Amino acid sequence: MGDPATASSNPYEQGLDRNAANFVALSPLSFLRRTAAVYPQRIAVVHGAHRATWAQTYARCRRFASALRSIGVVPGTTVAVLGPNTHMVYEAHFAVPMAGGVLNTLNTRLDAPAVAFMLEHGESRVLVFDGEFSALVREALALCKRPIRTVRHDDPEGEGGEAFGEVEYETFLASGDADFAWSLPADEWDAIGLNYTSGTTGNPKGVVVHHRGAYLNAVSNVVTWAMPHFPVYLWTLPMFHCNGWCFPWTLAAMAGTNICLRKVDAGRIFELIRAERVSHFCGAPVVHNLLINAPVALRAGISHPVSAMIAGAAPPQAVIEGMEGIGFDLTHVYGLTEVYGPAGVCAKHPEWDELGVAQRAERNGRQGVSYPLQEDMYVGDPDTLEPVPLDGTTMGEIFFRGNITMKGYLKNPAATQESFRGGVYHTGDLAVAYPDGYVKIKDRSKDIIISGGENISTLEVEDVLFSHPGILEAAVVARPDARWGETPCAFVTLKPGVILSEAAVIAWCRDHLAHYKSPRKVVFCVLPKTSTGKIQKNVLREQARAEC
Amino acid sequence: MGDPATASSNPYEQGLDRNAANFVALSPLSFLRRTAAVYPQRIAVVHGAHRATWAQTYARCRRFASALRSIGVVPGTTVAVLGPNTHMVYEAHFAVPMAGGVLNTLNTRLDAPAVAFMLEHGESRVLVFDGEFSALVREALALCKRPIRTVRHDDPEGEGGEAFGEVEYETFLASGDADFAWSLPADEWDAIGLNYTSGTTGNPKGVVVHHRGAYLNAVSNVVTWAMPHFPVYLWTLPMFHCNGWCFPWTLAAMAGTNICLRKVDAGRIFELIRAERVSHFCGAPVVHNLLINAPVALRAGISHPVSAMIAGAAPPQAVIEGMEGIGFDLTHVYGLTEVYGPAGVCAKHPEWDELGVAQRAERNGRQGVSYPLQEDMYVGDPDTLEPVPLDGTTMGEIFFRGNITMKGYLKNPAATQESFRGGVYHTGDLAVAYPDGYVKIKDRSKDIIISGGENISTLEVEDVLFSHPGILEAAVVARPDARWGETPCAFVTLKPGVILSEAAVIAWCRDHLAHYKSPRKVVFCVLPKTSTGKIQKNVLREQARAEC
Repeated sequence: MGDPATASSNPYEQGLDRNAANFVALSPLSFLRRTAAVYPQRIAVVHGAHRATWAQTYARCRRFASALRSIGVVPGTTVAVLGPNTHMVYEAHFAVPMAGGVLNTLNTRLDAPAVAFMLEHGESRVLVFDGEFSALVREALALCKRPIRTVRHDDPEGEGGEAFGEVEYETFLASGDADFAWSLPADEWDAIGLNYTSGTTGNPKGVVVHHRGAYLNAVSNVVTWAMPHFPVYLWTLPMFHCNGWCFPWTLAAMAGTNICLRKVDAGRIFELIRAERVSHFCGAPVVHNLLINAPVALRAGISHPVSAMIAGAAPPQAVIEGMEGIGFDLTHVYGLTEVYGPAGVCAKHPEWDELGVAQRAERNGRQGVSYPLQEDMYVGDPDTLEPVPLDGTTMGEIFFRGNITMKGYLKNPAATQESFRGGVYHTGDLAVAYPDGYVKIKDRSKDIIISGGENISTLEVEDVLFSHPGILEAAVVARPDARWGETPCAFVTLKPGVILSEAAVIAWCRDHLAHYKSPRKVVFCVLPKTSTGKIQKNVLREQARAEC
Repeated sequence: MGDPATASSNPYEQGLDRNAANFVALSPLSFLRRTAAVYPQRIAVVHGAHRATWAQTYARCRRFASALRSIGVVPGTTVAVLGPNTHMVYEAHFAVPMAGGVLNTLNTRLDAPAVAFMLEHGESRVLVFDGEFSALVREALALCKRPIRTVRHDDPEGEGGEAFGEVEYETFLASGDADFAWSLPADEWDAIGLNYTSGTTGNPKGVVVHHRGAYLNAVSNVVTWAMPHFPVYLWTLPMFHCNGWCFPWTLAAMAGTNICLRKVDAGRIFELIRAERVSHFCGAPVVHNLLINAPVALRAGISHPVSAMIAGAAPPQAVIEGMEGIGFDLTHVYGLTEVYGPAGVCAKHPEWDELGVAQRAERNGRQGVSYPLQEDMYVGDPDTLEPVPLDGTTMGEIFFRGNITMKGYLKNPAATQESFRGGVYHTGDLAVAYPDGYVKIKDRSKDIIISGGENISTLEVEDVLFSHPGILEAAVVARPDARWGETPCAFVTLKPGVILSEAAVIAWCRDHLAHYKSPRKVVFCVLPKTSTGKIQKNVLREQARAEC
């Protein structure tokens, strides 16, 4: 074996450098430009009476970018956007980076102090918001020390609100130039987005994502889902959640149609699926649960194929089975804000179609493998980072590595370094790996229950609770126990009209689980949730402690 | 408008650098590793009795890479491969770069001096070849001054040949390590391939392509074609032609099945389409022509959807119509070796389906627009590079720009700089742009005929000739003319059994073309072609001159 060819002797490194002809920064903005040129007349965005073509949407984004530039947005400026799924928020996904800015989408369920924290920490200079949230914005800005320019969008589909803010969105757009000469980022590593993790305790962390990753994950969505040309995509997933998993950019790449939706409502969802012939949508299990449990009459007249992605929490088998039951093709994906939303997928095997529904749901219920354009996702020892055996039982932590991974946390070098320790991204999710290499989450590190020295996966217990025909939702947390250290405590919401005793629930669990894993205590209640719809296990843990 | 945030004040540029967790070199090798892990049991490569799964193919590639390393292949070493479409050539597309080498596929129709030129110019240290070409290799090596290690593949599907070379391929593989610890390239800009342009005159130029572009074009094939999971791909296109347009890597990304094919033969092609349920194939017009004109009986029993890509020369409308006629869905793509094969596509619009076949063929006969992952393709003034008006008549040159563009020509800085002048890649193809932005080639710069001061597109004349029911193939070149400067001279191959006079051919052209564009002379013959199947217009031009 010889030495590697040195630069001086290697002809492949002489006179073959990058130049403007052969190297361009990867950015999802390129998809919008191309699709507006190739399919100018196809419908890009539908929201109530707003039906805009790709040519129109591109022109609106350029006006928006130009107007942002005129009020001081330059490369590196943070622009915050607060609103439900409307064309304004869709357009912001292109206009803000076209102006060189970094898009910070804010969750509409946040309270004023949380919004103020993000505006301050993210150093936003502009806030574009939906008029329905004027009061929230006014309160939040009163808490901010820095001056922030405001643009209010009066959406005819919204409920309206105070006439707060400097200028209305359409007036703001009209002030911009539809031929604005935007440019790609100087470096594909430049930030495109800032997304605060919801975090159940402490201050949220600002996840910074880059153009390269946004481009690659937008394409990875296509490859993962084997998407057709011109998909019709229904916005059941909030765009403020990890930039809608990069789907705003995916839709531009595939010249699809975005069907906006301000509120998740089963009737409205089925109506749009039917009227617009929606082919694809995404959402957390709660969205899918809503559809499964909706009156059958709402689904009348829908016979075309619909593909759905599910993530945000490990979906209970009952949800996977239920979606199959209503004829929707479900793909289970997995990710976190730090990896642009989903960067893992339970990639299906055609052979699974021959299995019974329970077995198929079990296969599909796993978090799976890395996204096609993510480099790696594996379960490893939390300390040594070495992969665990593929035995389905050895617990480890899920690690990601690859181009669909954040730059790091804004102004938080300690958290950034900790999360990237050893050259992998530490998810904090505890899981096992099966002999086929597929990963299954057993719990969040902080959620696991240790009872008599045995680990109990709260997800496993929740799966059993969900499989009970009378239970709508359930969450399990640790309750301190003098003898065992901890025991499982279940919080359960029953379906309307169902009556069930604590003893009956415990009996159901004992029939389907090892006894030590069964809850010792069952509380019937409405589950407390974060603004992103995650169950607040910290609140439940406190309550469980109080029940002792 | 303020100044761009400086690095010192821009929080997005502090402590958010690339690291091993969030940045990985883009390389198509990653697709093989992932697919072997996720779909180990699916069939990857079929060639006669050879039916290898992705796990087996990955193991074979690692053995191959390890064996190459053991005979001196290091990062930057050129490894030449000569053979038709077999599993050996497929495996080389992964094994050579896994060893850090640069893959130089050689055309099997080259003569010994041409092969020797490429081996010398490319500085190959190893040549892996198909046994049927032993004599060619022996002759070529006799002309080389540098020592070159040789590996011969005795393919049971081949016709065999001399027992030339140091070691047989399977023995060579057996000497390697199936667990070889290969690594991604140090830089995604590193060369992955060296592809010599066939060039009708002068020495061929060595096009150097990189891992980043190979990765992106492999994915761009998926997006362009909206490919499903698990495509079954028939290798009618030579892998030695622009690395099979990056499809070896695309198939790995989509966990598809490669059906190998040593020779283009209509009977064998239809047999494999039927038996293996082939879903996709690519080829030059000559391949499609062969299928269209094949006896109808050969197509019996094929009813599943088949998608085909066509490129390599502008397809006559007759071919586009013919493929539709046999029920194959045709996508017209456009490119050159310098842009990894196709980097442009005549992206279809659903509305075109409602047009008549002639209009539809006319729309689909254009070269179209840039590939989804290529940045730009446009017609511009050859000097100023400014885009021409989108009027369908102003002639200009086609330019490409983006990540699916070569590093440059090996050891040829003058040609590299010339081809990239002004920050775009100069194709040398003359074209017009239509109001919808779609590009249509009118001619190669050097092929255009100038008659009485008017430009005549030889392709336009050829289209008319092709549309004659009795004509199989046709080519038009300039013939010197005392009065007009040049006039068109047609070379025509008739279909079997057809009798046609020169006057009848000229009359047909006059009925369908402006008189000045009609050939003044028609020669009936078999058309001379290059090793890649391109018609040798330089040979025809000489003959046309002789006919004066």
